[in-house]
Amino acid sequence: MEGKSKYFGKDLITTQEWTKEELIETLELAEEMQQKRFSPEFTGILAYKSFLMFFYNSSVRTRQSFEIAATELGGHALFLEPSSMRLKTKDTAGETTEDAAGVMNRYGVGLGIRILEDKIAEYGQGDDLLREYAKYADIPIISMAHDRFHPCQGLADIMGYRKHLGKDLKGKTITHLWGHGALARSHCSVQESMLISSRMGMNVRVAHPKGYELDDEVLEWTKKNCAENGTSFELSNDPAETYDDADVVYSRNWMSTEAYSGGELHKQDEIEKALKYTDWICDEEKMKRSNNGLFSHPMPVDRSHEVTDEVASGDRSIILDIAENRLHVQKAVMALTMGE
Amino acid sequence: MEGKSKYFGKDLITTQEWTKEELIETLELAEEMQQKRFSPEFTGILAYKSFLMFFYNSSVRTRQSFEIAATELGGHALFLEPSSMRLKTKDTAGETTEDAAGVMNRYGVGLGIRILEDKIAEYGQGDDLLREYAKYADIPIISMAHDRFHPCQGLADIMGYRKHLGKDLKGKTITHLWGHGALARSHCSVQESMLISSRMGMNVRVAHPKGYELDDEVLEWTKKNCAENGTSFELSNDPAETYDDADVVYSRNWMSTEAYSGGELHKQDEIEKALKYTDWICDEEKMKRSNNGLFSHPMPVDRSHEVTDEVASGDRSIILDIAENRLHVQKAVMALTMGE
Amino acid sequence: MEGKSKYFGKDLITTQEWTKEELIETLELAEEMQQKRFSPEFTGILAYKSFLMFFYNSSVRTRQSFEIAATELGGHALFLEPSSMRLKTKDTAGETTEDAAGVMNRYGVGLGIRILEDKIAEYGQGDDLLREYAKYADIPIISMAHDRFHPCQGLADIMGYRKHLGKDLKGKTITHLWGHGALARSHCSVQESMLISSRMGMNVRVAHPKGYELDDEVLEWTKKNCAENGTSFELSNDPAETYDDADVVYSRNWMSTEAYSGGELHKQDEIEKALKYTDWICDEEKMKRSNNGLFSHPMPVDRSHEVTDEVASGDRSIILDIAENRLHVQKAVMALTMGE
Repeated sequence: MEGKSKYFGKDLITTQEWTKEELIETLELAEEMQQKRFSPEFTGILAYKSFLMFFYNSSVRTRQSFEIAATELGGHALFLEPSSMRLKTKDTAGETTEDAAGVMNRYGVGLGIRILEDKIAEYGQGDDLLREYAKYADIPIISMAHDRFHPCQGLADIMGYRKHLGKDLKGKTITHLWGHGALARSHCSVQESMLISSRMGMNVRVAHPKGYELDDEVLEWTKKNCAENGTSFELSNDPAETYDDADVVYSRNWMSTEAYSGGELHKQDEIEKALKYTDWICDEEKMKRSNNGLFSHPMPVDRSHEVTDEVASGDRSIILDIAENRLHVQKAVMALTMGE
Repeated sequence: MEGKSKYFGKDLITTQEWTKEELIETLELAEEMQQKRFSPEFTGILAYKSFLMFFYNSSVRTRQSFEIAATELGGHALFLEPSSMRLKTKDTAGETTEDAAGVMNRYGVGLGIRILEDKIAEYGQGDDLLREYAKYADIPIISMAHDRFHPCQGLADIMGYRKHLGKDLKGKTITHLWGHGALARSHCSVQESMLISSRMGMNVRVAHPKGYELDDEVLEWTKKNCAENGTSFELSNDPAETYDDADVVYSRNWMSTEAYSGGELHKQDEIEKALKYTDWICDEEKMKRSNNGLFSHPMPVDRSHEVTDEVASGDRSIILDIAENRLHVQKAVMALTMGE
Repeated sequence: MEGKSKYFGKDLITTQEWTKEELIETLELAEEMQQKRFSPEFTGILAYKSFLMFFYNSSVRTRQSFEIAATELGGHALFLEPSSMRLKTKDTAGETTEDAAGVMNRYGVGLGIRILEDKIAEYGQGDDLLREYAKYADIPIISMAHDRFHPCQGLADIMGYRKHLGKDLKGKTITHLWGHGALARSHCSVQESMLISSRMGMNVRVAHPKGYELDDEVLEWTKKNCAENGTSFELSNDPAETYDDADVVYSRNWMSTEAYSGGELHKQDEIEKALKYTDWICDEEKMKRSNNGLFSHPMPVDRSHEVTDEVASGDRSIILDIAENRLHVQKAVMALTMGE
């Protein structure tokens, strides 16, 4: 870890914008960091440096894993909640993104941003905000989950599959299933998983009820990734058939295409609608159709809706490993993009 | 401080669950840490490690003393407010304690929890929550004050008495007096004090108006502790008589047995009721009946209700020493249970 | 940096209360710290020590710059929001300043306080609160901006002028202009600027519409400072004439003398009134009257009200340098007053 890496200053908004080689290098560093967690090789990388975290949305895992990642690299993460800040919005006076980013360039070594569907008026505005910061900031902008993407979750997922299925994921099959539930969740985790698993050479399947279609561009990119790897991409509206022979089963709720209307998110309507699809739960019976598949989920899990306790706490569930991986991949990303 | 201690991973929910020898060892380490506050012997103990703090209730002293304790051991404490987290409650979807604890095992070296009467529907539920976390967490669960107990306050109290009365407290007398006031305070501090002072061989007295009875089990344990030490335990409803010949006078408000009804805490009613008992204040006149007694209080003090300014700021008041001790005992507890 | 400096334990409530020699020494240390930002000479100064920050008002810049300053000196800053604390106010039970300060003396190495006009009932109460803490605290009290003063901003401003105009500011001219706008801002930044620029030997001008008069005592002190340096002090109600031959143009909104009535701040009325003075904006045309003047502002900037984009983002704008300087001067102040 001597000198600035070629990654220095690089933004991470989605893994789709990094090369496959960069993603593999990041995963390998994360794996090394897991094995030698508090080694002096790593604990000085961000010594006395500060990483700024903007939480437009609160979070259990993301706050802990980023704040601890900075600590374990010898640095410090600042927990900032922009709701209590005087940043300009379209209706209020305040500081522009240009000015805010201009100062942060002088203070910190990186800026993480988390902004999900309930803090924006329309799908895509969170992604726009990150790209506006990226335009004015020299320091790297790291998505800590936003409406479209969740790159650190995607890396953590793959790190889990590499551990349990072997480092070459080529030809393995992952199926993503919509789960019914009471949380009206973001599209970001599942969309990132589709992108990065297809980049890694996996066959990718997606199943959801009608009305829960995902981002068109993400679908196009995933198809393109599969085409480049000679693997298959399949879409389905059946809650069980895509389990067949799958190596990884990913079950997660996300909100419908009708979640927004009139520039507003109708969260309660979403929850009521989603709770009706009781067939859309990952259970032992469906898992039997898989190839002794791993159960994957970005946590927190909505047990008894997205998945049964039996599966979530079962032998093939790797959710705790994946949650732990968040820490390691984020340390790797921070070391590569912010370390000198 | 080499290798894992026999305390490694041990929970601290009440001092009653640690042996007397363990408590004495902890106090001795705290005293050493006070004398050599920033010694390299101690500043590396939690280097690059993270302690998670869950504040269901906010706090002046506890936040500062735990966050600074982690800092002085070379580590980092995360200030987390579960009200803004997606943890499951009986009425809402969210993450289970099993899942939350499972991930924290991977991220942190310990978990502190603070949950007082106004955040629960019934006395005892805070204690239940800590024990549920303890069931699923491998890392130590440390009470940062909860409805029943406040072990770090109890240790800080005793550290103060050891300084001012000598290390052998055997046969010394402490009296706990209810104080009138406008804060409807938790039972945790006074109950912990009764338990740990009786363990240390002190004669224990408790006085309060009728209707302010304390936890039955705590009373039983205190009597048992006194019996084992051959010391006396006395209960009274008189605001003055238990001062007689006391070496330590502890005056503090706590809420009544009627504070809860219908699964709800009636804080305003409590305050109105408590303010009527104007005799229940620790003042110079009553202090004259004591054996030149020390004035003890866990702070923050409700001056002119629980105690007069004259006593609280007087020569025999050791409240600032005790507040300072919180830092040292918490460093000792963290070093013993989380250090490697 | 060996041994305690003569500054050890010194409060910083306004630069007017430090000698000119002390201010110059602080600026020189800040300049050295900027050049050698992460040098081991500085990163151990507050090792394992804690700086307490009380944010009665939230802030973008001040939080980041103080928290990062502590980090870069090897220490830790605690972000505390007293609204969620049990401190005594005139109407509620709670802890007294005496008790709160007494404990903080034992825990931390310094206490920063931010309290602006909207958190007090009358102009001057913020300053009173800092002085009450200073009375009971042995550790230094550092203003992080309060109703009357903002010493760290004043030091950052001067550090910027020293960089761009040379270290000897004697005889240079600074003009402070009220800016119209929608934020009803505090008097603290402009008042501190008047005080410190006059101390440094600059000619000082102030222009504002009638009704926006500043603190009488600050005006008297500024005149006295100018008299001692043989420089000029001018007041005006014209939005353009004070630009003539100025070396520095400082444009910033502040609230009127009628902002308070009946012990209440009428923020909305202030904003409506201020927005009518559309002549009071710093633009290219007015800047042409200056001596190729620098544009100065404490940020965040209310663009298109206080100043045009053209000026704020122009070649002569040094606002980002000044914002960066906040970090360096605060590190210098903390090192001098809290380092051992």
